[in-house]
Amino acid sequence: MKNSLFALNDGSPKYKQIYKQFKSFIEQGNVKADEQLPSVRQLADSLQVSRNTTLMAYDQLVAEGYIRGEGRKGYFVNQLEPHLYQETLTPRNNQRTKREDTETVLIDFRTDTIDQSHFPLKIWRRMANQVLALPESFRYGEPFGEICLREQIAAYLFQSRGVKTNANAIMIGSSTQQMLINLGHILKDNFSSVIVEDPGFDGAREAFQFHHFTLEYLPVSATGADLSHLKQMDSSLTYVTPSHHSPYGVSMSIQQRQTLIHWANKVQGYIIEDDYDSEFRYTQQPFPALASIDSTRVIYLGNFSKSFLPGLRLSYMVLPQPLLNRYKNRFLHFESSTSLFSQLTMAKFMVNGEWNRHIKRMRLVYKRKMEHLVSLLKEQFGQNISIIGEQSGLYVLIKVNLACSEKWLMERAHHYGVKVRPTSIYFIKNHPDRPIIKLGFSGLSFDEIELGVNLLRKAWL
Amino acid sequence: MKNSLFALNDGSPKYKQIYKQFKSFIEQGNVKADEQLPSVRQLADSLQVSRNTTLMAYDQLVAEGYIRGEGRKGYFVNQLEPHLYQETLTPRNNQRTKREDTETVLIDFRTDTIDQSHFPLKIWRRMANQVLALPESFRYGEPFGEICLREQIAAYLFQSRGVKTNANAIMIGSSTQQMLINLGHILKDNFSSVIVEDPGFDGAREAFQFHHFTLEYLPVSATGADLSHLKQMDSSLTYVTPSHHSPYGVSMSIQQRQTLIHWANKVQGYIIEDDYDSEFRYTQQPFPALASIDSTRVIYLGNFSKSFLPGLRLSYMVLPQPLLNRYKNRFLHFESSTSLFSQLTMAKFMVNGEWNRHIKRMRLVYKRKMEHLVSLLKEQFGQNISIIGEQSGLYVLIKVNLACSEKWLMERAHHYGVKVRPTSIYFIKNHPDRPIIKLGFSGLSFDEIELGVNLLRKAWL
Repeated sequence: MKNSLFALNDGSPKYKQIYKQFKSFIEQGNVKADEQLPSVRQLADSLQVSRNTTLMAYDQLVAEGYIRGEGRKGYFVNQLEPHLYQETLTPRNNQRTKREDTETVLIDFRTDTIDQSHFPLKIWRRMANQVLALPESFRYGEPFGEICLREQIAAYLFQSRGVKTNANAIMIGSSTQQMLINLGHILKDNFSSVIVEDPGFDGAREAFQFHHFTLEYLPVSATGADLSHLKQMDSSLTYVTPSHHSPYGVSMSIQQRQTLIHWANKVQGYIIEDDYDSEFRYTQQPFPALASIDSTRVIYLGNFSKSFLPGLRLSYMVLPQPLLNRYKNRFLHFESSTSLFSQLTMAKFMVNGEWNRHIKRMRLVYKRKMEHLVSLLKEQFGQNISIIGEQSGLYVLIKVNLACSEKWLMERAHHYGVKVRPTSIYFIKNHPDRPIIKLGFSGLSFDEIELGVNLLRKAWL
Repeated sequence: MKNSLFALNDGSPKYKQIYKQFKSFIEQGNVKADEQLPSVRQLADSLQVSRNTTLMAYDQLVAEGYIRGEGRKGYFVNQLEPHLYQETLTPRNNQRTKREDTETVLIDFRTDTIDQSHFPLKIWRRMANQVLALPESFRYGEPFGEICLREQIAAYLFQSRGVKTNANAIMIGSSTQQMLINLGHILKDNFSSVIVEDPGFDGAREAFQFHHFTLEYLPVSATGADLSHLKQMDSSLTYVTPSHHSPYGVSMSIQQRQTLIHWANKVQGYIIEDDYDSEFRYTQQPFPALASIDSTRVIYLGNFSKSFLPGLRLSYMVLPQPLLNRYKNRFLHFESSTSLFSQLTMAKFMVNGEWNRHIKRMRLVYKRKMEHLVSLLKEQFGQNISIIGEQSGLYVLIKVNLACSEKWLMERAHHYGVKVRPTSIYFIKNHPDRPIIKLGFSGLSFDEIELGVNLLRKAWL
C-alpha cells in the first residue's frame, strides 16, 4: 500500500481523515487481511503529521476492530465479515445524507433548543466538576431522586409557583413523557379515559395512548379553553397546560382555574397540570399554579428542559398523597433513570441562588427576542398574519391569512433557507381556519431572527 | 432577636449553621412573621464571619421561602403555614437520622459503587467540558440515543464481545431495569411468562413482575446453571447472566451457551442476555457473548454502571430485527430519558481510546483488590468460609460454614462497624445450605479491605 494514496485536505481533524482512509481501504478490500500497515512513525513521517496523530488513527481502527496491534511487530489488518461492514455502513451513510440535507438551512426557527450565549457555562461547569469529585457521585442514586434536589424544588415551587409541597412528595424523572408513562401505570387502575386539550401537546397524547387510554378532547382556541364542554364528558381525569397552553400560549384565568378544580372535586378525579415553561411569562407575573389552589386533586409536572437545558433530562412530578403512596409502592424497586450528576449539579446550582439568577436573566433575554421577532413580523407581514401567544414561552405562533396550506408555507420557507415548524400535529378535530406556523426563537440571535423574518417574507408574500 | 443566641461550632459550613439556626427560630415561632432580620452586614459583624457567609445563609432562606428580601429595606420573615413546615420537617429529619446511623460504619463492603481513586477524573471532566460547549448539547437528543455513541458501542461489542451488530440495532437507555421494562411492553404481546435464574438478579424479576409475567425458575448453583430443567418449562423466554452469573459469579461454558441457543431456536423464543459486568474477568479472557453465537434469538443488554460510573445512567440493548422494528414503532414518539451529556461525553471517551484504556486499567485494579480480599479471607477464616465467584466481578460471595443465620452475620458485622450485604434476596426456592454474604470491594482501599476482614473475623469467630 502506498502512502501517496492519502490526501489530507477535507478540513476535519487529520487523525480522522487517516482513520477514514484506512477504514475505507480495508472495507473495500484494498488492503487484505493480515497485511502489515506502515508503522506509526513511518506513516507520520510520510504524511508529515505528528506520531500522535497517526497513533490516534490506529487506536480508533483497533477499537473498531479493523486492525490489531501485535506489540513490537506492528499493526495488521483484521479479517472482516463482508456482511458486517455493509450493515454498519448503511445507517452511517443515511446519517450523513441527513446532515448534508439540513446544511442548506440558513435560519432554523427550531423549538427544541435554548439560548446558548447566555447559558452560565462557567458556573455550571465549575459546579459539575465539584460534584464529580464527591464520593456519593460514584454510587447509584436514590430511586425517586436525590433528596437535596427535591428539597430545592420544593422550596422553588413554593416561592415561585405558590405550590405548598415537600421533598417527600416530589418524584424526580427524566422527562415529562417518562413521568406521564409512569403515572399512566398508576392511573390506569382507576381511569380508562383522559381529557386532553385540542389542540394540545402531542407528546402527552402519545403517553396516554401508550397505555390505551381513551381520549376525549377539550376544545381550546387562541382565547383559551372552553371548559363548558367538561359537563358532557365521561372522563374524570384531564391533562392541561394552564400556565402556557401548548401550543396557543394562552393562560387560564383564575376563574377557569377554579372551575377546573371544582370539576375535579365534583367528579373525584385528577387534573394533570403540565407547567412546562411557566418561568417565561413576559407581560405580568406568572399566575399561581393549579396545584397552589388545591393540591389534593392536582398532579403537578415541571421540568428543566425549557428553563435550563433539555439534554440534562431532568423533570419532576408532585403527587397528591394517595397517588404518592401508590407510586412509591409501584416503583420502589426500580433504579432512578435520571443522571445523578444532573441532579446533584442542579441542586448545587439552586442552593447557591444561581437558578433564580438564571431564570431572571433568561426571562429578560427571551422577552427581548420575543419582542424583536414580533415587531419584525408585524413590520414585514402586517395584516397577512395574526400573531398568537407572544406573552410567554420560547416560540410564537403565526396564523397566515393567505390562501395556502401549511405544507406550502413550510416548503416555500425551506426553499428560501428557512426551517419553520408545523402545528397541524397538535390539532385533532378543532382545526384552525388558516394554517398556523410555529416559530421558535430561543436559539437564534437578533440578527438571525431578522434574517429569518426577511427570508420568510420573500418566501411567502 | 439577639445574635448572641448563635454559637457557630458544629463543624459544618458556617453559612449552613446560620441558615439552620434561623430556620429553626422561624419554625419554632421565635421570630414572628414580618419581623425584620439583622442586615447582612450587622449579622456578619456580630458573628465575626464574612458578609458572603451571611448572604449565603439569607439566600438559602429566601430560596426556601422562610424570609424575603425587600430591596434596601432588608430581610423580613415570611408567614409560614404551620402544617407545611411540619410536613417538610418529617422527611428531612428521617434523612438526618438515617445519615447519622450510617456514620457508625467504619468499613462498608458496598456493592453499589466503583473505585474512585483510579477514575479518569481529569480526562472525563475535560471531555465533558468540551461537550458542553457544542451547539448540539443545547438541544433535545435522539429518541433511541445519539448515533455517535451507538457507533462506538457497536465497534466495542464487536471487538470485545464478538457481537456483530450495527449502530441502528442498538437502543440507548438509562438502566438495565428501564430497558427491561421497555422490552416488557414489546414482549408481553407474545409472551406471558419468563424463565429467570434462581438465585438471580432481583431487579430483573421486579421488571418482569411489573408487567405481570409469570416467573419460572432455572436452578443455578455455585458450579453453574442446570439447563436440563429447560425441557420441563413452559416459557419460551429466558433472562440469564451467562458471563458472570448474578450473584454466584459463574460463567456458562461454551457447551451451555450452545444448549441455550439451541433451546431458543427450538421453542422459537428469546434469550435476554444481561452482560452487566463482563469487562472484569481476571483469570482468563471473557467468553464470547451469547449474542455472538446467534444474534437472531438473543436480546443483548449492557451498561456502563459497573464498568464506568453508575450515576451516568447509561445502558444499551441490542435487539434482533423483528423486535427492533416493534420497539422502534412503539417508542418512536418518546423523548430519550438518557442524559445527552452522558452520551456525548462517553462517545468522545470511546473515540479517543480512553474507554479501552480505562477497562484495561480497572481490570488490573480490581483484580488486585479481589486477590487481596480473597487471600485475607482465606488467612483469617480458613475452613470457616467457602469463597464463591472470585474469578470476576466487583464482589465476592462467602458461604459461612457456621451454625448461624444471615441476619446474625449482618448484625454482628454491623456491631463491629462493618456493613455487609445479604444474598437471600436473590434466592426464590433454591436456598443454599448455609448463609451467603456478599462483599463488594470496588470502593475500598487495600487497607480498608484488610481492616474490614479483620473486623469481620472478630465479629463472626
